[in-house]
Amino acid sequence: MGKIGVSLGTSLTQAGHTIQALHDINPDRIQRFIRGSDDTSGFNDWGRCQIVIIAVPDAHLEAVVDEWEKRRQFSPGTLICHTCGARDGSVLAPLETFGDTGVFHPLLSVPEGSIESASFQGVLFGIDGNPHVLEILKDLAASLGATTAHIPSEFRGLYHAAGVLAGNFPTVLASLAEHLIIRAGVSPEIAWSGVIRLMQSVTDNLSNLPPEDALTGPVIRGDTGTIQRHLDDLNRWVPEMIEIYTGLTRAAAKMACRGGSITPAAEIEIQNLLTDESDPRD
Amino acid sequence: MGKIGVSLGTSLTQAGHTIQALHDINPDRIQRFIRGSDDTSGFNDWGRCQIVIIAVPDAHLEAVVDEWEKRRQFSPGTLICHTCGARDGSVLAPLETFGDTGVFHPLLSVPEGSIESASFQGVLFGIDGNPHVLEILKDLAASLGATTAHIPSEFRGLYHAAGVLAGNFPTVLASLAEHLIIRAGVSPEIAWSGVIRLMQSVTDNLSNLPPEDALTGPVIRGDTGTIQRHLDDLNRWVPEMIEIYTGLTRAAAKMACRGGSITPAAEIEIQNLLTDESDPRD
Repeated sequence: MGKIGVSLGTSLTQAGHTIQALHDINPDRIQRFIRGSDDTSGFNDWGRCQIVIIAVPDAHLEAVVDEWEKRRQFSPGTLICHTCGARDGSVLAPLETFGDTGVFHPLLSVPEGSIESASFQGVLFGIDGNPHVLEILKDLAASLGATTAHIPSEFRGLYHAAGVLAGNFPTVLASLAEHLIIRAGVSPEIAWSGVIRLMQSVTDNLSNLPPEDALTGPVIRGDTGTIQRHLDDLNRWVPEMIEIYTGLTRAAAKMACRGGSITPAAEIEIQNLLTDESDPRD
Repeated sequence: MGKIGVSLGTSLTQAGHTIQALHDINPDRIQRFIRGSDDTSGFNDWGRCQIVIIAVPDAHLEAVVDEWEKRRQFSPGTLICHTCGARDGSVLAPLETFGDTGVFHPLLSVPEGSIESASFQGVLFGIDGNPHVLEILKDLAASLGATTAHIPSEFRGLYHAAGVLAGNFPTVLASLAEHLIIRAGVSPEIAWSGVIRLMQSVTDNLSNLPPEDALTGPVIRGDTGTIQRHLDDLNRWVPEMIEIYTGLTRAAAKMACRGGSITPAAEIEIQNLLTDESDPRD
């Protein structure tokens, strides 16, 4: 049971649902979930499960489905779903002999090392399944204070890429920013706490303002001098960051123009500066 | 008086400092700061200022310095500093006839449209100046509950680029992620609230875990299948996002390897996948 499984189990129990059965290749993790008790017998009644949630990494999904198809412990009419963002329900096809299948993916970043069980309050679940399944999963999410959106097969890759953009890449940016500030001579502790405080101010702003209005920095000022200084200094000290800087500054310039903080001419000026930088052959 | 100036004025007043003088090219903004009163006479005693803070966009700095050099209203021994992150103190050289100069830049994202005045609690100020100035600015920041780091001239570009990475680019990523989820058929309101909730979970994780441990997603699982699916779907629907996705996934793979969640061989596999993608000529 990874962090998503443990967090779902905890939150569903708190919401009044009953956990009838638990499975993990490592029995220790089940015992950790049921808080140290050795007695897992109360969590082994697969026949009484109305909904089975497979919360494993995407790459393990086939193996779990294969194993469960052989076990055949479920009652007819059981809804079986997985929590993988980029996968559709087709991987669960061998289990359709038991009942409906679906996808129940929370758009949430839950690291394995986090201490507390995650809350799903306000979280968007990208769900899939037949209309009946969608209704059940919508109610299940609602019982956790979460919302849902139907993400059909063909859009699951795009939807999950969005999760990577907003759920993984900010962590990468925080680490890169810390690295730059340390390069500027600051101690790791002070650099990291400064970066985190900065990023918290960003999420606070995004809770109150649309992204075009929350954006700050040289791009919305049309400040090509500062952008050029960044490009020069990144090229000098950390050239491997140029691709990230130019890609995101390009997108920022589009946003700033769309939001009205810079003119189309100013956007073109920024885009040209970045093109010169990223492709010296031009 | 932009948002940084207003926020600094408010926070410094709350911390027990006295605002002796205020200047803005637009007198309305001063009146807004002093809460509607028409009487700005109490805020015009430049001769009593011990510290003068010039909080203007980088591009306006020279004009303000030029104007203030002509005014010569400051008493000898006045410390004059600016709040521009990428600029050093040399732009203030014409004002050195009055006293010391310095840089006092808060690593904080304060959009002009935000309603509340920003708090500087826990914020890192990148400061510069002679040793005496550094001491004064350190105390000034401490009175706001903030910390400081000395960022000398040659590293200010790098330091400020870090501010853009952690203070501007997460907003860009949030906007791009919203865009992808809307493309997947979800309403803008639900897409946006889902993205913001996701990003809040990331900053919460970063407050408790080092970045290598806070990172989640396909890269730390070495899940090349999901990464390939993202690349395929981004290429199909939003090819302009490939540069951002490959650049940040490259950096994520380095982080994941450094943090021990993937092997060096798995990192190379991911890097090769991204190289094939970003340069089809290979």
